[in-house]
Amino acid sequence: MEEATPTEIAFIEKYHFLEAGKECEAGAFLVDERLRLEDSRPYLSTRQPRFAFIQLLQLFEKEKQLRPGVHPTVVVGERCMIHPTARIGAGCVLGDRVSVEEGVLIGPLCFLDNDVVIGARSILYPQVAIGANCRVGKNCVLASGVVLGTDGFGYYDHGQKRYRVPHLGNVVLADGVELGANTTVDRAVVGTTRIGAETKIDNLVQIGHNCSIGSKCLLVAQSGVGGSSVLGNGVTLAGQSGVSDHLNIGEGAIVIGKAAVRHSVKPHEVVGGIPARPIRLENEIAEKIVELPKLLRRLETLEQKSDAGTPSEKVTYSSWRDEVVSILCRQLRIEPNRLGPEMDLKEEFGADSLTVLSVVSEIESRFQITIPDQDVRDLRTLRAIMTYLEKRLSH
Amino acid sequence: MEEATPTEIAFIEKYHFLEAGKECEAGAFLVDERLRLEDSRPYLSTRQPRFAFIQLLQLFEKEKQLRPGVHPTVVVGERCMIHPTARIGAGCVLGDRVSVEEGVLIGPLCFLDNDVVIGARSILYPQVAIGANCRVGKNCVLASGVVLGTDGFGYYDHGQKRYRVPHLGNVVLADGVELGANTTVDRAVVGTTRIGAETKIDNLVQIGHNCSIGSKCLLVAQSGVGGSSVLGNGVTLAGQSGVSDHLNIGEGAIVIGKAAVRHSVKPHEVVGGIPARPIRLENEIAEKIVELPKLLRRLETLEQKSDAGTPSEKVTYSSWRDEVVSILCRQLRIEPNRLGPEMDLKEEFGADSLTVLSVVSEIESRFQITIPDQDVRDLRTLRAIMTYLEKRLSH
Amino acid sequence: MEEATPTEIAFIEKYHFLEAGKECEAGAFLVDERLRLEDSRPYLSTRQPRFAFIQLLQLFEKEKQLRPGVHPTVVVGERCMIHPTARIGAGCVLGDRVSVEEGVLIGPLCFLDNDVVIGARSILYPQVAIGANCRVGKNCVLASGVVLGTDGFGYYDHGQKRYRVPHLGNVVLADGVELGANTTVDRAVVGTTRIGAETKIDNLVQIGHNCSIGSKCLLVAQSGVGGSSVLGNGVTLAGQSGVSDHLNIGEGAIVIGKAAVRHSVKPHEVVGGIPARPIRLENEIAEKIVELPKLLRRLETLEQKSDAGTPSEKVTYSSWRDEVVSILCRQLRIEPNRLGPEMDLKEEFGADSLTVLSVVSEIESRFQITIPDQDVRDLRTLRAIMTYLEKRLSH
Repeated sequence: MEEATPTEIAFIEKYHFLEAGKECEAGAFLVDERLRLEDSRPYLSTRQPRFAFIQLLQLFEKEKQLRPGVHPTVVVGERCMIHPTARIGAGCVLGDRVSVEEGVLIGPLCFLDNDVVIGARSILYPQVAIGANCRVGKNCVLASGVVLGTDGFGYYDHGQKRYRVPHLGNVVLADGVELGANTTVDRAVVGTTRIGAETKIDNLVQIGHNCSIGSKCLLVAQSGVGGSSVLGNGVTLAGQSGVSDHLNIGEGAIVIGKAAVRHSVKPHEVVGGIPARPIRLENEIAEKIVELPKLLRRLETLEQKSDAGTPSEKVTYSSWRDEVVSILCRQLRIEPNRLGPEMDLKEEFGADSLTVLSVVSEIESRFQITIPDQDVRDLRTLRAIMTYLEKRLSH
Repeated sequence: MEEATPTEIAFIEKYHFLEAGKECEAGAFLVDERLRLEDSRPYLSTRQPRFAFIQLLQLFEKEKQLRPGVHPTVVVGERCMIHPTARIGAGCVLGDRVSVEEGVLIGPLCFLDNDVVIGARSILYPQVAIGANCRVGKNCVLASGVVLGTDGFGYYDHGQKRYRVPHLGNVVLADGVELGANTTVDRAVVGTTRIGAETKIDNLVQIGHNCSIGSKCLLVAQSGVGGSSVLGNGVTLAGQSGVSDHLNIGEGAIVIGKAAVRHSVKPHEVVGGIPARPIRLENEIAEKIVELPKLLRRLETLEQKSDAGTPSEKVTYSSWRDEVVSILCRQLRIEPNRLGPEMDLKEEFGADSLTVLSVVSEIESRFQITIPDQDVRDLRTLRAIMTYLEKRLSH
Repeated sequence: MEEATPTEIAFIEKYHFLEAGKECEAGAFLVDERLRLEDSRPYLSTRQPRFAFIQLLQLFEKEKQLRPGVHPTVVVGERCMIHPTARIGAGCVLGDRVSVEEGVLIGPLCFLDNDVVIGARSILYPQVAIGANCRVGKNCVLASGVVLGTDGFGYYDHGQKRYRVPHLGNVVLADGVELGANTTVDRAVVGTTRIGAETKIDNLVQIGHNCSIGSKCLLVAQSGVGGSSVLGNGVTLAGQSGVSDHLNIGEGAIVIGKAAVRHSVKPHEVVGGIPARPIRLENEIAEKIVELPKLLRRLETLEQKSDAGTPSEKVTYSSWRDEVVSILCRQLRIEPNRLGPEMDLKEEFGADSLTVLSVVSEIESRFQITIPDQDVRDLRTLRAIMTYLEKRLSH
């Protein structure tokens, strides 16, 4: 909105954009009909603003006016079938018996190995690599750097030797599948690694050998699926999540970002965490875990009252120095005899700010004090730390 | 097994495949000799079914019958040495003094910079890029999109300027190394980034500059190793795990999926978690952590009995609304004054189902109730939530 | 240092390299002036050893002596402007109206779509793909496999249909930006995905559509940023960390490795964990969480003393077997009736060493015993486990 000019349309979907809308310089608005926009500029009002926005974008999308035909630099193998309405960009290399159907667009520098089939109206951006026997459905989109049908990760150690598992299968994408940039999909050992219709996969995603991904799934960037796992229809894997091998993820299940799924997931379940658990439990743990340090202190108090627990460790003045030295040496990874009392931790031992923070945090926890940020700055030597602790702990 | 036809062999390695085996249409079986297959069809029985399966696959693997020679479209620099039995595919570009040994297969559209050496019988799939001075051993396999010998990530801020650390070293792969699709290996600052013999690396893995990876390691997809770290022989990094820089991972150690290794690991140790800890401790934590919410309640009960703890916070009826408003505003990221009692959380504030779940989970935890799924559906406005809470908490 | 020869210079930056320095065969040293090197060989002494090291490396870096010009195999579209001092390597493909400024180096097999601009003295390594309308600033470096300006991940389900969000925007890199190998940056829906001056991005990183990354940021390998998030200047994302969409990461903030940032972060804050929290809290949790199992036992003890808690579950001798069977069946994913008392868990059910460890760890935790490693080896059948438990628990 901040960059909108009077020849442009601004999009107001939520309450908190109303203010920015008034102040921006857009010439017109697309606005949710339940929001009251008090402005004299023209606007389109709709119950489904996001859908209208997409339709509007489609109107402004330039039709790619690419002439059909095979660029003269393309290297084509034997017995390929290339539809006359397809376009194959400069520098592509096709193996034997490759089939390219009606209206397909293949960008420059792609490689299609023997017996690959590209379904009608699919788009391959530049530098896609597709292994032998793989099949791409109709209306698919493969972004640059996609590697489809590479061998899976399978080895077998027998005696002293390590054997490679031959991968005789292939990959089949149903219609309307999209794969993001630099995403990799492994071919099956035997049979087929399958991705279902209208499933959309983001950048840098890994799909293992013999997986079966349902239709209308969403796999967000940097997620991964181990070999032979089965995802039902409509499954969502959020960013950087992972699913181990040989699991079943039920229809409509959602895996939260960063989660590590190690057991099968029921249909429509929402899971998160490492290892992944039902999201309500995971949220509750995340909320309660910050209480853990306080909880330990409360437990200690109770134990002292009841005379029942282990008596809490006593800090004796003379042992402080040893403890601080031990914390420093562990964090800085140095030998205790290397640490002179006046040595500057940053300058002489290369302690970066993270290491200093870890040291401070350990000292705080060990001596049950809080060290304010302005004090941290001065704690540059062992002596400075000891002087500071004596002052803080003396009363 | 479900797809097997009478001309195919099915593979029965475990008890729970026996049933499926009987019902499938395979014409023959490969079966573990300790399993009693009661079936009239012919079978091969072996003590090592997995190894036999791999040998069987090898029999069916088609020999790649590629004629040797350099494709006429290949651009070759000065003083290259290409063995007559090697094959270099269409569109490859080679720098100066590149050496390609006996029986090497290089797929189309690869780039090999100056002074690269590719050892005998190695295979480069299409679109591999190898930087200057790097050496690939014998019998290696590099999948499509591998980038070997890119500059490492090293910068140095001095005054206002940011300096790039020159990378003068290289990468050396020993014999039998395999690198998966789109995997990246950085060259050393000085010296060599090394990967040992028979080490297998999966797709989308990152190896930092100056690492030394032992022999017979397994690095699973999307794992990463920071600069200058040393992995002993036979180390396993499971999927999406990470090893920080400057660490030592002892021989035979196993890093579980998703783990973040921040300290060196002893030989044969198994570690997991963030930060990585010994696996038994990590498993115990994972098991106990789900008790945390219950544990807090038990602690509160004890505190009340002993009169010793902080008295547990009292919920006063009049403050409920404020608390719910505060939960909603935080989760929806809106200002409290934006939130009218009848506003639909989904429609007007774009709350997705995850946000709604988080709100519900916070309310459950705050008011110590459980809200069944069928009730969640109706909690679409602040008023609806308040009415519901009054009903649930009144008795 | 171990590999240094008498014609080489060794670099001694820290105390613990002094010893190795003395023993190595280097002919000279670069040494921190605060370290006392007792050695007769010549040395350069400096207050800023790291900076001196980089300057030294620069002296040894070979100038890339590449002749300017467009390789005859390059396919160039209409109305491109290529500066005569630029070099474009073999096999590149350029669309229409591409602008390549003074001193630019473009490696082989790159693709630049229509209206792309490459600023003066920038370097594109081989196999980079840049989408239409994207602009690369001056002095940028793009490593191999970078995909700049691919469509973002945006879909909209309406009725039965799934719509693709058109991406009409572009990507703009300011001056001095570097992108690592196989890193992907998505173009904006409308407007621009921006990366600020001197920001350095490592390998396999994902930047979502409409992000705005400040200047002088560092994004380490395999990190990711969700759509529309804004990073201030000088932000650090450590390896494998992730930032969700639509967040603000304040200037100078640091995100620790593996962290999952789900809320905006204040300037100069340091956060870590899943979900990301202030680093001191996260460190304290990490430290305390290992106490959790012990804590539970301490709580139980207290409860028994106060007669207040739930009485701790009693283990009755006769139920042991059921519990062990249940642990085994869950871990091995088999039906209870499959498990005979003499069946070998490894041989017959394919239990790998991790599964065995998990079983042992569950049994230890359930029966509150510790099973030494040498005993684990013998627990290969249900009967062996039961015999062992009876022995251990009988007294």
